[in-house]
Amino acid sequence: MRLLFLYTTLVISVGFSFQAKAQHPCTYNSKEEARMIQKALPTNALLNESFLSIKKEVDEWVGKDIDVPTPKDPAGGYTHEKHKANYILLFNSANLYQITGEIKYAQLVKNVLIKYAQLNPKLSKHPESKSSSPGRLFHQALNDANWLVYMGLAFDGIHDYLSQAERKQIAEGAFKPEVDFFTKDLNSWFNLIHNHAVWACAGVGIVGIATDNDSYVKMALYGTNLDGKTGFLANIDGLFSPDGYYTEGPYYTRYSILPFYLFANALQHSQPELKVFARRNNVLQKALTGALEQTNTDGGFYTYNDALKEKTYTCNELVEAIGIAWQVYGANPALLPIAKQQNRVTITKGGVQIAQALINKNIGKQYPYHSIQFTDGPKGDEGGVSIVRSNSKEGLTSLIYKYSSHGLSHGHFDKLNINLYDEGHEVLQDYGAVRYIGIEQKFGGRYLAETKSFAAQSIAHNALVVDEKSHYDGNEDESQKNHPNLLFSQIGMDSAVQVVSAMDDKAYANINMHRTEYLLKLPKMNKPILVDILRVLSPDNHQYDLPFQYLGTFISSSFTYKSTKQTQSTLGAKNGYQHLWKEAEAKATKPLTQFTFLNNSRFYTISSLTDDSTQLFFARIGANDPNFNLRHDPVYIIRKKGGNQAFVNIVEPHGSFDPNKELSTDAYSTVKSIQMLQNDEHFTVAEITVGTQPLLIIQCNDQVDKKAQHTAVVREKSYVFKGAFAVYVGGKPL
Amino acid sequence: MRLLFLYTTLVISVGFSFQAKAQHPCTYNSKEEARMIQKALPTNALLNESFLSIKKEVDEWVGKDIDVPTPKDPAGGYTHEKHKANYILLFNSANLYQITGEIKYAQLVKNVLIKYAQLNPKLSKHPESKSSSPGRLFHQALNDANWLVYMGLAFDGIHDYLSQAERKQIAEGAFKPEVDFFTKDLNSWFNLIHNHAVWACAGVGIVGIATDNDSYVKMALYGTNLDGKTGFLANIDGLFSPDGYYTEGPYYTRYSILPFYLFANALQHSQPELKVFARRNNVLQKALTGALEQTNTDGGFYTYNDALKEKTYTCNELVEAIGIAWQVYGANPALLPIAKQQNRVTITKGGVQIAQALINKNIGKQYPYHSIQFTDGPKGDEGGVSIVRSNSKEGLTSLIYKYSSHGLSHGHFDKLNINLYDEGHEVLQDYGAVRYIGIEQKFGGRYLAETKSFAAQSIAHNALVVDEKSHYDGNEDESQKNHPNLLFSQIGMDSAVQVVSAMDDKAYANINMHRTEYLLKLPKMNKPILVDILRVLSPDNHQYDLPFQYLGTFISSSFTYKSTKQTQSTLGAKNGYQHLWKEAEAKATKPLTQFTFLNNSRFYTISSLTDDSTQLFFARIGANDPNFNLRHDPVYIIRKKGGNQAFVNIVEPHGSFDPNKELSTDAYSTVKSIQMLQNDEHFTVAEITVGTQPLLIIQCNDQVDKKAQHTAVVREKSYVFKGAFAVYVGGKPL
Repeated sequence: MRLLFLYTTLVISVGFSFQAKAQHPCTYNSKEEARMIQKALPTNALLNESFLSIKKEVDEWVGKDIDVPTPKDPAGGYTHEKHKANYILLFNSANLYQITGEIKYAQLVKNVLIKYAQLNPKLSKHPESKSSSPGRLFHQALNDANWLVYMGLAFDGIHDYLSQAERKQIAEGAFKPEVDFFTKDLNSWFNLIHNHAVWACAGVGIVGIATDNDSYVKMALYGTNLDGKTGFLANIDGLFSPDGYYTEGPYYTRYSILPFYLFANALQHSQPELKVFARRNNVLQKALTGALEQTNTDGGFYTYNDALKEKTYTCNELVEAIGIAWQVYGANPALLPIAKQQNRVTITKGGVQIAQALINKNIGKQYPYHSIQFTDGPKGDEGGVSIVRSNSKEGLTSLIYKYSSHGLSHGHFDKLNINLYDEGHEVLQDYGAVRYIGIEQKFGGRYLAETKSFAAQSIAHNALVVDEKSHYDGNEDESQKNHPNLLFSQIGMDSAVQVVSAMDDKAYANINMHRTEYLLKLPKMNKPILVDILRVLSPDNHQYDLPFQYLGTFISSSFTYKSTKQTQSTLGAKNGYQHLWKEAEAKATKPLTQFTFLNNSRFYTISSLTDDSTQLFFARIGANDPNFNLRHDPVYIIRKKGGNQAFVNIVEPHGSFDPNKELSTDAYSTVKSIQMLQNDEHFTVAEITVGTQPLLIIQCNDQVDKKAQHTAVVREKSYVFKGAFAVYVGGKPL
Repeated sequence: MRLLFLYTTLVISVGFSFQAKAQHPCTYNSKEEARMIQKALPTNALLNESFLSIKKEVDEWVGKDIDVPTPKDPAGGYTHEKHKANYILLFNSANLYQITGEIKYAQLVKNVLIKYAQLNPKLSKHPESKSSSPGRLFHQALNDANWLVYMGLAFDGIHDYLSQAERKQIAEGAFKPEVDFFTKDLNSWFNLIHNHAVWACAGVGIVGIATDNDSYVKMALYGTNLDGKTGFLANIDGLFSPDGYYTEGPYYTRYSILPFYLFANALQHSQPELKVFARRNNVLQKALTGALEQTNTDGGFYTYNDALKEKTYTCNELVEAIGIAWQVYGANPALLPIAKQQNRVTITKGGVQIAQALINKNIGKQYPYHSIQFTDGPKGDEGGVSIVRSNSKEGLTSLIYKYSSHGLSHGHFDKLNINLYDEGHEVLQDYGAVRYIGIEQKFGGRYLAETKSFAAQSIAHNALVVDEKSHYDGNEDESQKNHPNLLFSQIGMDSAVQVVSAMDDKAYANINMHRTEYLLKLPKMNKPILVDILRVLSPDNHQYDLPFQYLGTFISSSFTYKSTKQTQSTLGAKNGYQHLWKEAEAKATKPLTQFTFLNNSRFYTISSLTDDSTQLFFARIGANDPNFNLRHDPVYIIRKKGGNQAFVNIVEPHGSFDPNKELSTDAYSTVKSIQMLQNDEHFTVAEITVGTQPLLIIQCNDQVDKKAQHTAVVREKSYVFKGAFAVYVGGKPL
């Protein structure tokens, strides 16, 4: 696994001097906050329930001899899960001690920490380790970093209960071997700009604050070289774009936001003068709301890059982050629908405030989603991601258009990829990652080989694939060096016309991909249609595959295809193609090809501009899958050949199907024709008939200035417009 | 399509004389009932909402010219859906007229009926008809029967508003051509014992009552020969077993219960002396509760025989039936959880009563399900179906064991089939039927060819397949002649041991299949395990395939298998095997083979008694499917060869997986060994180790008397027990 070092502009605050003997506890709740929580408990039901739920979990272990086993198993196995359970238990028990003052909770924490103080000095690399950054308690160092974060918080919570000798024993026995391992043995890993390093810095930093170890805190903040080019602050600067987009994507934002917030919260308590939450115009706040904007209405994080579909904003990471955000950045009603669905709060000042805000309030049904654009890269100049949304009484349509940088080691080869959601339903999916986290039998819960061999490949996306090779020929280092660029855009949920246009000329040598998404609310239509115009410019001839990872049931096609019978073969031999069974193929007809499927009680038709040299494929994921790791989802692929080429596809939701009532409405597409009237260096002009409505899209290819005026002549009629595009229905601007 | 004529013992009540000039309306709500509903409306929110919802639908059409198109399209097409919408509209409008007295509703009904009076005499066989029982307004006569039922009710609702001339015009123009077509042209179809005939009789009978046509009513009740061997009453006698099991299975119970109840309700109003609801000890009441017992906790009807998975008890058929049942059979609190989920009531006296019962009541979360046994056949001597249930804090486990008769034209070749549910989740599924009802593009919403070629075949079930041939070699006529027999059983939800044993010796020549299901609640286990013992007795050698239609994600197997890579082929050439892709195969190991999968956050392991001649297959549905009609669900198949053979399989739910918390518990099976210590004409003795608990099952094969005492010697120890089986854990009876 190669991780990227990013340049950072951080200048170390030289005058900063660490308050070595802080008042404890000061990493999670202060004494004053604990008293405030104590007072609020009897009067707030949700707070009290959250408290009692934690108390119940901890009480089961009070007075028992808690096992601290010698590390042996990978994720899902006993020793892994036990050490994981232990750090959560100790964190909770220490917090209970703070709130209730009951000695039994402090004793529990102490007893276990002493056991770790005895165990940890004896450890070396975990026997199940298969990573370049092995752990000691766990198979990978990342999990050891998790352990360090929570154990640091737990230690701080009972700091004053411990004798000085006990503090020394734990600091030197339980913590020092781990900190040394991170900052010496795994020095280059610790000094990464990457979510692993965020966890590692948070762990070392929190332990530093808890044990009054200035040197730990400094290494955590500025990297082991203390030059500020790495460490926690450099990660804040390097991993987020100015508007809070986290380069690894929403699934990992969710994961890394926890150490960012936990350590920042500890710093806010112990060194408020650092103003870490205000850094880069509150970038940590933007990171949180940005992550929430990148969820679907069921709460799931969008699954581009490596991601598991089941993760929603009800996960603990987000409960913790929202609790801290409320406390630090003040009340934010937009968070309340999330907090309500989480149905629990942290036992913190922020948790108290949220629980109070949830009483007697008209809480919205969901997060107030927007059409929103994110830039990528620390300076915001490495492409980005647009979420284009449109609301109707039939629900929220969300289009994700991705023209960001690679996204570090969890990135995929998905330049100019699109995904489409209807409320919480994926219509054009991103496969996500191939992993069963937490299930030992599935390679210890680690990423499975099919993540690289399939899920990360270009063909696994809704992105152009040239000559059956992935972008950058699947080379992560090359991909990480470049990014597409946004050309022009116009978004806004209330707008009938939303457009995002981007270009990539690096993913394939000598090939320029220019893809523009038009999300259009046409008169008399319940839901917006998506017009997807993909121009490919190349001096040489190539094969172009444009896959649609649709989810749903095949309903009908406008073309005749030849399907497999007694045997079937893979669509190709490598780059993800080896995982696709070719179920059917067809020659397209000219000029329009239509394919209709049913997704969650709604019909969708993909209408495509094709000619008689276009090939069509129905394929299915699942070939070459010896461990049955893949889902058997379908794919529809449009294949064209040539040098310069163009794809015009309309994705049209229509009608509905109620199997209980046995009733379907508007089961047929209303797209009657697609014509490309012009497609050159000046203009792309597409004429489409939707029902009886003629739709005309004129796109300017050589001038994206919003103020520039253009005149395009279409069918002998002049159209004068400002900016890079114009959309007309029945001759009038939409 | 071959339909079965059943002998019926009905003796016609000769003295019965029909009251030709009834007071109208008398088919749905009486005048008195309408007044009662009117009064209740302002005071009951759910009733009022239900009323307003219908009113809103009808009001959209009041005063408009409603199209009565010349029939042209199959299901899903315009003319089909329009005629369907028309009969619902007229039924509702007539009911609104009765409740509100507003003339506009009567006018609407009249105008449309007059149009039908003009159209219908001109019609002949529907142009899209592909059935042996074609319709006129619709592609199949069944839909015309639906039309006749609702139009008869609508006519009756406005009977007194119509002039005598109008009544005559409608009776002779709209109804007579349909009634004549049914009772003359389709005479043999009308005289079936089958759900189609129930609809047809209900239509002709309701029209007879509504138009004061005694001859129609008599044909409806006693068949066109008036001998009572066919007709409505013969269907009540012939389609239900004495305990209300409907021979076509729950999906079709749902469908046919509507005409049964609607016509019975009309008869109850017009000829209460017939006491049709009391017939055969309230068999219509038993049919309704029996249908509800055959639903899963999500409301879906069990999908054996031809069935669509999406149908739940919130469908209109059940709303209507529950409304009438409440009115006829009196209050039944067990129905309230259903009514609550339906969230609407009929605008009838029963609807008023249910809506009132739903106020201020502690309504249960779900129907109070039981372990229950149904006999099949009019006399209850044609096998049956057992639903064996077990409740725990982790939810309701439901095992369906089917040893019934074929189930007429919608039956499958599924002798001794089992299905397993965990709450609403299918664990071992029944595929159901291959059909997209209401979607015109999918063969007009009709049954698709893969229903016969795959879904009905034995290999599509969890049933034994011999020599890759379906039961009765796929011959429906032969299958309909026979049925398996129940040997012994002991059920009861609170019992730790529930057992059902049945035998079939007709499905394959010279082969005796004896399958016994043990649902056992073992000490220290959260969920019951299923021990499935299948003995096969045959003088000749055969190939035996036992498929498990599991739903879920492959987690692990105890054996090494060889999986496909670049190409894959079907498992066989016919009898359903041509629709299965062979994804992997393996030689089993001796004596235990285990396969674990994940289904909806719970692990399941199938532990099987195997030897080194046993073969194992992982297959997937979806081969030879030119129209992409099939779901791509997985199948696990155990193949043994020989003469006498035995399968012992344990289906064990265990642990849980929470992907949001990334946490799995008890991910490994606790079954350590399976041994068959004896299996002969006297006893089958299976010794199983579950965790550290030795489980011993002794089954008596030659004596099923509950009172008979047996002594079995196992490992030199004598076990003395009464009845056909005994289950011991750690040497003590469970």
